[in-house]
Amino acid sequence: MKGLSEQMAKFVIENATVVTMNDMREIYQPGYIGIQNQRIDVVSDSPLSGSKWKDAKYIEGSDTIAIPGLINCHTHAGMTIMRGMADDMPLMEWLKMKIWPMEAKMSPEDVYWGTKLAGLEMIRGGVTCFNDMYWHSNQAARACDEVGIRAVLSGVLIATQDNAEEQIQRAVDIVSEWSHKNHNRIKFFFGPHALYTCPPAYLDRIVSYAEELSTGIHIHLAETEQEVEDCKREYRGESPIQVLEKVGLFSRPTIAAHCIHISESDMDILADWKVSAVHNPSSNMKLASGVMPVENLLKCGVNVALGTDSAASNNNLSIFTEIRMASLLQKVDSGDPSALPAQRALDLAIRNGAIAIGMEGRLGQIEPGFDADIVLIRKNRIHSSPSNDPISNLVYSLRPDDVDSVFVAGELILENGQFIHVDVDEVIAKSKEIVDRIRV
Amino acid sequence: MKGLSEQMAKFVIENATVVTMNDMREIYQPGYIGIQNQRIDVVSDSPLSGSKWKDAKYIEGSDTIAIPGLINCHTHAGMTIMRGMADDMPLMEWLKMKIWPMEAKMSPEDVYWGTKLAGLEMIRGGVTCFNDMYWHSNQAARACDEVGIRAVLSGVLIATQDNAEEQIQRAVDIVSEWSHKNHNRIKFFFGPHALYTCPPAYLDRIVSYAEELSTGIHIHLAETEQEVEDCKREYRGESPIQVLEKVGLFSRPTIAAHCIHISESDMDILADWKVSAVHNPSSNMKLASGVMPVENLLKCGVNVALGTDSAASNNNLSIFTEIRMASLLQKVDSGDPSALPAQRALDLAIRNGAIAIGMEGRLGQIEPGFDADIVLIRKNRIHSSPSNDPISNLVYSLRPDDVDSVFVAGELILENGQFIHVDVDEVIAKSKEIVDRIRV
Repeated sequence: MKGLSEQMAKFVIENATVVTMNDMREIYQPGYIGIQNQRIDVVSDSPLSGSKWKDAKYIEGSDTIAIPGLINCHTHAGMTIMRGMADDMPLMEWLKMKIWPMEAKMSPEDVYWGTKLAGLEMIRGGVTCFNDMYWHSNQAARACDEVGIRAVLSGVLIATQDNAEEQIQRAVDIVSEWSHKNHNRIKFFFGPHALYTCPPAYLDRIVSYAEELSTGIHIHLAETEQEVEDCKREYRGESPIQVLEKVGLFSRPTIAAHCIHISESDMDILADWKVSAVHNPSSNMKLASGVMPVENLLKCGVNVALGTDSAASNNNLSIFTEIRMASLLQKVDSGDPSALPAQRALDLAIRNGAIAIGMEGRLGQIEPGFDADIVLIRKNRIHSSPSNDPISNLVYSLRPDDVDSVFVAGELILENGQFIHVDVDEVIAKSKEIVDRIRV
Repeated sequence: MKGLSEQMAKFVIENATVVTMNDMREIYQPGYIGIQNQRIDVVSDSPLSGSKWKDAKYIEGSDTIAIPGLINCHTHAGMTIMRGMADDMPLMEWLKMKIWPMEAKMSPEDVYWGTKLAGLEMIRGGVTCFNDMYWHSNQAARACDEVGIRAVLSGVLIATQDNAEEQIQRAVDIVSEWSHKNHNRIKFFFGPHALYTCPPAYLDRIVSYAEELSTGIHIHLAETEQEVEDCKREYRGESPIQVLEKVGLFSRPTIAAHCIHISESDMDILADWKVSAVHNPSSNMKLASGVMPVENLLKCGVNVALGTDSAASNNNLSIFTEIRMASLLQKVDSGDPSALPAQRALDLAIRNGAIAIGMEGRLGQIEPGFDADIVLIRKNRIHSSPSNDPISNLVYSLRPDDVDSVFVAGELILENGQFIHVDVDEVIAKSKEIVDRIRV
């Protein structure tokens, strides 16, 4: 049985530069990691000895940096099918002329293949976990299970659509079903699209269901200036964040994507309720939405994580790229070259991501007892030489293509840049068939 | 003899998606390219036949996109040795605390190795030509010649240093020497660092030498707000661009790096004199210098090219990355998602680069008669699938690591991602030795 053998698997990673991302941000050069029962058993600056590890698979890591897996806290994986189909367009034109007409032609099976492609791209680039919002989330779950990536999935909920009621019922069914499964890598949140598509009464019901099923909420928030202006007009001068607070949405663990156009008092609300705000720099730049005030949010005590948004507005799912982008964008936007320095930028993508998805004590560090989501990145690349500070290298020089090996929950999914279980060519070929059918 | 055999070499690239970048921006899918005598002999949408090509080396390009080589119009290649040595710092602190003390320890031989490393990184990422400004430019020339990359080199000239006179004489000697050599890939410009380090009288002499030796000028211009304010204080309210116009600097072909803090009338001056302005988005973001108004410059008729600046402020030398960055940055800065669309962003890095270095009729297009500087990029990548529009793919999805093969002047330098003539490991090892010696 594959599942059982995986659980029994033991690995020892030797001689890697281990960027633990623990509370002291310790780095072992060289470091040694022992993995068993899906967890990190030991992290050390000396070789692992004893009979415990004699039947482990040994991985030579001397040419690599080991980091906890990157966490992509906002994407729509199924939309990967629409990569590059609509560039250089304003948001509403992009949605109305391109995205929605193509989505109308997409089947559940298409979402399965799109999510599988997304999962492959993310794993290949060192992302071991993602937070998703898209249609046919049960098909997305099937794709994630096959790829082996960890995921928090939300079906989209849009109250303004004809089948809004059906959407809620379906979401409740799926969240319940997966809650019972107690899957080691996949869990479900509720995904109300945004305040402007889900009025307070509708959101109120979702909050109740989320409470009943002990789960969280993934929502778009304050992405465009127009959205905030419209909200203030409709809700007697209140911002979307103020309205959502009144609705009680933030009483549930909430992941809010974008949070660009927000005031100081909005930030305080997010901090008070421990809402995680997800920065999506490439997508926000490409759609000209604006720049999230990341440093101000952090100063206010808000947990800021990183996301790619979808491949239709990015057009990659590379958290590596977003880390560098977040740091550079914050510097130029604030006029301060010391803004969002390397270590803090890396924190967004790893530790803060773990907090956002409610797995603070299980993910985001290479520490004994944590789940073994680990990425090995080749370090002596032409474009990162001479290698000096591994944190600088990770943030400013190295790239998704430098990822060598990836573990999720102690399972080796990618080795030497190659997928072990998945037929990559089949997924690429399928994605082409689909795009040729749905093209508008 | 290696030189001679190269000149005789013939290649046929078959079945590639050929992005010609010609005046009609034609794309052949599939396309066929015949190369001989360092030039592009034929470009066609049907296979090449006839006895002429029977002794050619055939390259199967069906998994690739062929583009004219990318041109990096502003860098300091020797500084690659200082990659990642000084992040998250303000410009003057960066220079005084880190860069200058390290440079003081660098030997001519160190610049040779640094430039060699830079050349490898650029070729590996599809850059076939770069415009450089750094110390010991004769050593940089030796490195470029060995790597096989095309280069326009300028020794730095700083009037405020003790050996300013010696710098000028050395520059005149080197420019003369290389002018006589008539090297097929390497030429020299003069490199006065900036107006704030080279006063008008000094610049005036450089202009005379440049005229005498029929060459151009590479200078930093309007990079920071402070620079422009200081200039206006010193020169009765005149901007750096106004001062340089009066000096007569722009009477020579001029490549001006940065041009961030400029007025409409400054733009008109650049357009009138056909000065090329080089946009360095990553470096400008990292040092928080500001955002070049690229679209406004283009509308004023200024030729805008792309650069990486040095690996000490980027920290890569990837024009691929800068193309995407330029487009995204212009969109968010202007609030217009249609700003700097994909084709226009690609133009900056290819056609406009060729114009900047004075090789408009020889580089920047895959057209018969043009020099054979050609890059093959793997197209069916996970992160670019499903592939749709090759221009969108090139600008928004594909990355430097997707470069498969590179020709410069008809010579195959990189094949299947591997260097043919250069020992990469030796260069990386040398760069580490050097950085350990010069670290401050």
